[in-house]
Amino acid sequence: MSNSLPSRSENFAEWYNQLVLKAELADYAPVRGCMVVRPYGWALWENIKEALDKRFKATGHVNAAFPLLIPMSFFEKEKEHVEGFSPELAVVTHGGGEKLAEPLAVRPTSETIIGYMYAKWIKSWRDLPVLINQWGNVVRWELRTKLFLRTLEFYWQEGHTAHATAEEAEEETRRMLDVYTDFAINEAAVPVIPGVKTESEKFAGAVRSYTIEAMMGDTKALQAGTSHFLGQNFAKAFNIQYLDKNNQLQYAWTTSWGLSTRFIGAIIMVHGDDKGLVMPPRLAPIQVVIVPIYKTEAERAEVLEAADRIRRELAERFRVKLDDRDNLTPGYKFNDWELRGVPVRVEIGPRDLAKGTVALARRDKPGREGKTFVPQEGLVDTIAQLLDEIHNSLYERALAFRNAHIHEPKDYEEFKEVVQNGWAYTYWCGDPECEANIKAETKATTRCIPLEGDSAEGHKCIYCGRPAKYKLYFAKAY
Amino acid sequence: MSNSLPSRSENFAEWYNQLVLKAELADYAPVRGCMVVRPYGWALWENIKEALDKRFKATGHVNAAFPLLIPMSFFEKEKEHVEGFSPELAVVTHGGGEKLAEPLAVRPTSETIIGYMYAKWIKSWRDLPVLINQWGNVVRWELRTKLFLRTLEFYWQEGHTAHATAEEAEEETRRMLDVYTDFAINEAAVPVIPGVKTESEKFAGAVRSYTIEAMMGDTKALQAGTSHFLGQNFAKAFNIQYLDKNNQLQYAWTTSWGLSTRFIGAIIMVHGDDKGLVMPPRLAPIQVVIVPIYKTEAERAEVLEAADRIRRELAERFRVKLDDRDNLTPGYKFNDWELRGVPVRVEIGPRDLAKGTVALARRDKPGREGKTFVPQEGLVDTIAQLLDEIHNSLYERALAFRNAHIHEPKDYEEFKEVVQNGWAYTYWCGDPECEANIKAETKATTRCIPLEGDSAEGHKCIYCGRPAKYKLYFAKAY
Repeated sequence: MSNSLPSRSENFAEWYNQLVLKAELADYAPVRGCMVVRPYGWALWENIKEALDKRFKATGHVNAAFPLLIPMSFFEKEKEHVEGFSPELAVVTHGGGEKLAEPLAVRPTSETIIGYMYAKWIKSWRDLPVLINQWGNVVRWELRTKLFLRTLEFYWQEGHTAHATAEEAEEETRRMLDVYTDFAINEAAVPVIPGVKTESEKFAGAVRSYTIEAMMGDTKALQAGTSHFLGQNFAKAFNIQYLDKNNQLQYAWTTSWGLSTRFIGAIIMVHGDDKGLVMPPRLAPIQVVIVPIYKTEAERAEVLEAADRIRRELAERFRVKLDDRDNLTPGYKFNDWELRGVPVRVEIGPRDLAKGTVALARRDKPGREGKTFVPQEGLVDTIAQLLDEIHNSLYERALAFRNAHIHEPKDYEEFKEVVQNGWAYTYWCGDPECEANIKAETKATTRCIPLEGDSAEGHKCIYCGRPAKYKLYFAKAY
Repeated sequence: MSNSLPSRSENFAEWYNQLVLKAELADYAPVRGCMVVRPYGWALWENIKEALDKRFKATGHVNAAFPLLIPMSFFEKEKEHVEGFSPELAVVTHGGGEKLAEPLAVRPTSETIIGYMYAKWIKSWRDLPVLINQWGNVVRWELRTKLFLRTLEFYWQEGHTAHATAEEAEEETRRMLDVYTDFAINEAAVPVIPGVKTESEKFAGAVRSYTIEAMMGDTKALQAGTSHFLGQNFAKAFNIQYLDKNNQLQYAWTTSWGLSTRFIGAIIMVHGDDKGLVMPPRLAPIQVVIVPIYKTEAERAEVLEAADRIRRELAERFRVKLDDRDNLTPGYKFNDWELRGVPVRVEIGPRDLAKGTVALARRDKPGREGKTFVPQEGLVDTIAQLLDEIHNSLYERALAFRNAHIHEPKDYEEFKEVVQNGWAYTYWCGDPECEANIKAETKATTRCIPLEGDSAEGHKCIYCGRPAKYKLYFAKAY
């Protein structure tokens, strides 16, 4: 296997594709647009799952599993939903050798079937709120696909909740957006901007969609997680009703929110460099790799013994791997683990044994700059600190990069220029036609109206010059 | 909700169906034969997953995710496999509004697509063994369905491994059977008999299938987990080849092994009683429930405060719930948690506060027999011991029940009688025709030739009287 990648500046798309394959995160499946998530990629996803699941449970949610197959007629029940999703459905028409009376869709998302079940389960205000999440796979028949970012089948979690009041549902929608924001920043070291989607970009069937938007290493935007306030749209479509404290029948208010394997794409594109992946320490499948260095057989035995002792000590607290492959040189191993983005490399050789030291190399600062020589004594604490430092450093670097590529253009001419290599944070009148024209002319779409943004009062739409309603982000996006 | 169930002796099937619904483990989905696994059922499955996953990782396996959709032509590549699975396939014929050039099967199991990927990944003996497991959903178009036991879609894990030699693959197959046996006994308190399937009962495409067989509360058998030695069948069908140490191209040897949500059915039917579920303590979603008992408002405040303190203490070590619902009587709550099978109930009232005690009730021994009064001091240790005791007691009870219902009939007349309400452990010549006749005449099928069984030497086939080759179990089965 050759480790050499195209450089990011030269060909970002090819750098990404080759990196995903060479680092063995994923591979192409025999069916067009489908992927295989390989063990190293899946281990990353398992860590993402664990970090999110802990947060979901801490906010009172429980997991369940709803069926993969949904009657086609269910999609018809919510007008915007069917328009949004029916072009993307994979349809099962035959089962057990026979043609089905009603074709079944492979779920593209589960609002409909979960709405149907909630209508069955929810009777009284005492049954509310219902706070259920599902980890699973969904299928959307996409035409242009890219590993992790857009595949026919992908993996995600979808939360679906039902509440007695609009206020509670809205609060839940925002709470889960906060959970995603907290996860992105504090687990993945990915800076995100939480905000509201415009009408044209919202989820099909939602009243209001919230998003966290992240800037990738090529300055394009990626919608990294979404949370939807569904109002009573699905409650009315599926008849989710409850008796309130006054014994009156009321429709429930629902939400849904999801984060998918797409987020792995964000991690790759935010942190990766020309040498390969740079895994954020808290999610890294392997946090520390130990590479033993020796020449003679006698050295080998001694060094491996010490390396294995260190491995055992570190394993109490970290995900650690000792690379004891005897057919590869240390140099090859260094490259290999750099490609895979392991945050910290521990090197140990005969001289370290004598001195009671090891060399530590930081993946986020390859070369001399990131290398230190530290005592073996207290190594667990040293590495714990170093991992935190790497986390913070990755976050700060990504934040600085993002801030350097967000512009406030003075006019539409400048707008057109800045969105070629960055985001525009600017004013819009709120007219979908301006939004559509901007998209057609520049390929930049509205990303979000930030929750903590500037007022648009007294400003003019960057496109048409009419009074602005919003100040929001525009960018080319994945 | 009425808690009353039909009794097990009266109508075991109805007892089972109503219990699954009333305990809110699962519900029927709108598509025939599909189920919704509700939060309480899914929490049980998550505990099963964790207990198994830990064992898989300890034996060197890693997780990955392979696609849901498999080209139909893949099934044709292995002759027995296509015969076994093509009648059960759900088929996607349309995607994105268009008819597909080649229809896709929703995976019923993944040997084919994983074989295809292994052929791509495995080049040299250094790449072996490949030890991958997948947690996911599969679809088999079954005609007669039953919640958890046989549903169109179900959840499982499927391990798929590739090895350099037949011996290693066979060893892996047996190792995973041991893992399932250990899990069943030590986590689920379900006694199982590990053994080999006959030719007619083996997995479609396997050389040899191993199984763990459990006896349900109605004496029927349930195949609770299987491990298959696939020989080179799939390696040849998908061209999984590697260069050995002598640079010779060799076919790999593969295995597959799986355990599914079916196992939840086993837990229900092995341990449950007329009052409802009896959860094995190590897998129970809630291990301890605390029911506060009070009459006046003043008592309520005091008791709830103490109950919450105890909850916090217990939560350090157990999955615990404080039932503080104020619209229900303690009696109602007792029944409710008995229905749901929580292993230990802690009752605390005003008199306990004064004495510094609580009452403990064991779910496996409802009524006076299982009730003790213990000090609040040291409660964590008391309960830890009690949970172990309940685990052992459940296992011993199930084992005694099974042993009491295994018979060694002296002739075929007696055989026909014993398999009406138990298993026959008896002799067979090995002729598939005898096996088929027995099945047609009695509905009893061969369950397994036990790994640690008696010799058949010198004995005669229970059906035809010719010399016996095997001593094995026959039973009616789910």
